[in-house]
Amino acid sequence: MKKTTLIKEGKAKRLYNTDETENVWVEYMDQATALNGKRKDHVEGKGTLNNQIDCMIFELLNAKGIHTDFIKKISKNEQLNLKVNIIPLEVVVRNAASGSFQRKFDVPYLQEFDQPVVEFFYKSDALDDPFINTNQAQALKIITAEEGEILQEMALRINSILKQRFAQAGLELVDFKVEFGKNSEGEIILADEISPDSCRLVDLETRASFDKDVFRKKTGDLVTVYQEVLDRLINSQEEAHV
Amino acid sequence: MKKTTLIKEGKAKRLYNTDETENVWVEYMDQATALNGKRKDHVEGKGTLNNQIDCMIFELLNAKGIHTDFIKKISKNEQLNLKVNIIPLEVVVRNAASGSFQRKFDVPYLQEFDQPVVEFFYKSDALDDPFINTNQAQALKIITAEEGEILQEMALRINSILKQRFAQAGLELVDFKVEFGKNSEGEIILADEISPDSCRLVDLETRASFDKDVFRKKTGDLVTVYQEVLDRLINSQEEAHV
Ligand SMILES: Nc1ncnc2c1ncn2[C@@H]1O[C@H](COP(=O)(O)OP(=O)(O)OP(=O)(O)O)[C@@H](O)[C@H]1O
Ligand SMILES: Nc1ncnc2c1ncn2[C@@H]1O[C@H](COP(=O)(O)OP(=O)(O)OP(=O)(O)O)[C@@H](O)[C@H]1O
Ligand SMILES: [Mg+2]
Ligand SMILES: [Mg+2]
Repeated sequence: MKKTTLIKEGKAKRLYNTDETENVWVEYMDQATALNGKRKDHVEGKGTLNNQIDCMIFELLNAKGIHTDFIKKISKNEQLNLKVNIIPLEVVVRNAASGSFQRKFDVPYLQEFDQPVVEFFYKSDALDDPFINTNQAQALKIITAEEGEILQEMALRINSILKQRFAQAGLELVDFKVEFGKNSEGEIILADEISPDSCRLVDLETRASFDKDVFRKKTGDLVTVYQEVLDRLINSQEEAHV
Repeated sequence: MKKTTLIKEGKAKRLYNTDETENVWVEYMDQATALNGKRKDHVEGKGTLNNQIDCMIFELLNAKGIHTDFIKKISKNEQLNLKVNIIPLEVVVRNAASGSFQRKFDVPYLQEFDQPVVEFFYKSDALDDPFINTNQAQALKIITAEEGEILQEMALRINSILKQRFAQAGLELVDFKVEFGKNSEGEIILADEISPDSCRLVDLETRASFDKDVFRKKTGDLVTVYQEVLDRLINSQEEAHV
């Protein structure tokens, strides 16, 4: 199997067709962005770190019975995924207050929730990715009511698995963003990426950030903290049985 | 029974205590506001029109088995309500695109939805009444999951009744906002007001506005159109059997 034409170059990854039509070849780039792409830096080593972290996470989710697009790791910065039709929703799960939730509702940073909070954002560059509820998403024919429930349920199952896995690595999963797609049979599949780019992680003890917030807020070195996330995941792997 | 101390003067109504502690005496004022109260006009006759329309609507809802705070009409511009603890959510139901939905998602004015859309806004002056989903409302302890479902279900039942009733008056119910409260037993009760201040109504034939949009957009005389809504409701009353 080999990669063929470029499908899309995003802010973090390049997607290529392969000679097998049902697959995409994903190349993680050494690029970090903030402010919806307005700030864009070359960050040597980021692509290999995120690819390795993402591969570990998606392998775990596959093993736990979550249907994902992950097929296999190809190289340090490349992986093979199932090609899906991306559902244009960013699905966010929060265990504690941070980011836009904290700003919007003026609650203390890292205030814990009794139950995880699921939010949907409509992936639309023209509309600037607005926050949307499931009724609105149905009215706009983005999802059916049933699909809305599946997304909510899958997001919560993924959250339970990730929360536990990151805790084994000494990290608290504050929140994360995922994307889903449909395979050729119309089944909903977890797709895209799970990495410190798309998760908020803080040290269980010190509460220091181990995610893209160090880049957004310029409070630390991205490669150093992402490397630490990878190392901690690897070192806690035996315990995690994956 | 008589009114005693003023509880609250809002933008449209004054609430008084009565000598019966479980009740509130509501006086509809001759005042219209727009832009969240930044624009405020005296509008002679508005209070009596909205009070009369609201009394007809709430009587109908009571008759249809919806639990509401409406007890009785006192005078042309006053009514007696059950005092409730207002749940700080504005519950919006939409049958077609208008207002903030239309702006947010850039869809055509009055585009019909297959299913009504329910939205919640958090009543918080400090936060500027943000759009909120039921997960967030639970995290902020505004409602429980079960209460969120009751609100959604009651809002949709109210919508069905109102849609049909306004259609009998030659009007399409585009959208409306309601508030709910809890009675002393903790039961969820429809409260506040339903009037052309809180509904979007357009003529079934001409699509002309018969609601506060004529005041917001300065496209017509508020009293003239509210009077027409009241007249049409009265004239279609026989047909509606209320
Ligand atoms: N399995 C998949 N099949 C098809 N497309 C995918 C798959 N996984 C992810 N994608 C899409 O590929 C792109 C990934 O690239 P990247 O993360 O760099 O994009 P991005 O800059 O975040 O852009 P976007 O705003 O589209 O998410 C995204 O558009 C994502 O939705
Ligand atoms: N049955 C009731 N018991 C107690 N309070 C009520 C009841 N019905 C309505 N209210 C409250 O009384 C006030 C009604 O006044 P009005 O509609 O003029 O207020 P408003 O300017 O819209 O203010 P708000 O932002 O609080 O809704 C609102 O605060 C409403 O929530
Ligand atoms: Mg992305
Ligand atoms: Mg009001």
